[in-house]
Amino acid sequence: MRYEIRIAGEGGQGVILAAVILAEAAGVYGDWEVAQTQSYGAEVRGGYSKAEVVISDSKIDYHKAIRPDIFVALNQASCNTYYRDLKAVDGIFVVDSSIVERVPTNKAIKVPFTEIARKEFKPFMANMIVLGVIVRMCDHIEYDHAESAIIGRVPKGTEYMNIEAFNHGYEEIKI
Amino acid sequence: MRYEIRIAGEGGQGVILAAVILAEAAGVYGDWEVAQTQSYGAEVRGGYSKAEVVISDSKIDYHKAIRPDIFVALNQASCNTYYRDLKAVDGIFVVDSSIVERVPTNKAIKVPFTEIARKEFKPFMANMIVLGVIVRMCDHIEYDHAESAIIGRVPKGTEYMNIEAFNHGYEEIKI
Repeated sequence: MRYEIRIAGEGGQGVILAAVILAEAAGVYGDWEVAQTQSYGAEVRGGYSKAEVVISDSKIDYHKAIRPDIFVALNQASCNTYYRDLKAVDGIFVVDSSIVERVPTNKAIKVPFTEIARKEFKPFMANMIVLGVIVRMCDHIEYDHAESAIIGRVPKGTEYMNIEAFNHGYEEIKI
Repeated sequence: MRYEIRIAGEGGQGVILAAVILAEAAGVYGDWEVAQTQSYGAEVRGGYSKAEVVISDSKIDYHKAIRPDIFVALNQASCNTYYRDLKAVDGIFVVDSSIVERVPTNKAIKVPFTEIARKEFKPFMANMIVLGVIVRMCDHIEYDHAESAIIGRVPKGTEYMNIEAFNHGYEEIKI
């Protein structure tokens, strides 16, 4: 088993924290082998950045996503750049519909992460809603493990609202 | 140019945050290409974890450290496991001398990170002292960029003390 998650967006959207939390949910609180990577450089300064999580039942030799099982695009540039890498047939494509205007497929799951965060939580909690959607879609990360990982990583005193934002994302998706 | 940094210790020592800050200092505030990775799994649950930063002047194809230029061991297990990977001749080996009792070489730089953090700052700020030592030793990360990355990543209200801990590490090393 190898399951690949990619989240891409801009600096300030909390992409890295979301990926670190997913990795800890699966690999520290859960029993999977996990590799988590992010790249910085010209790409980032050009307007987009990405973070990845690879989950496996055995030792991971290649740490980067090759054909993501789930890809969340939080801005137009990352949507354009990375959509083509998505796993064929059953790859899950999620976009922030409050930011991404041109979506390259009608099979995308559209969630207005940024708008929901701004109206109902805090603007910087969009990444927690993203986490909720990913955990709901990914069979390899348990709800309780994600909750523990969130509580361990967010600033003291903000745990409750972060979990509420996470729950919002988790319940947004009807399976 | 390819420069590899590895930090290894236990959960709770802030290894990942330190690596994320180094990566941002070099690749977001600085102009380098940077890859940052961490692994979780059986290793972690067995008592140690590691995070790595690779800095380069060109696109990075292999994201993991192969022969670290600098390796910081924050516990005995990671010291035992990873010391052998250190770059030959001029690889820099740093240990937390308040925790690591058996050091495999007399060329190690010994800093009692945990003890300094507990006595002069906060126990969880040992990683900021580690950052100071690494930034002082690594020619590819500028002081100002590290400072900006720290301020961007630590909880609001704790910036000043975190920077003080970072400065302590930076000044610990006489070059």
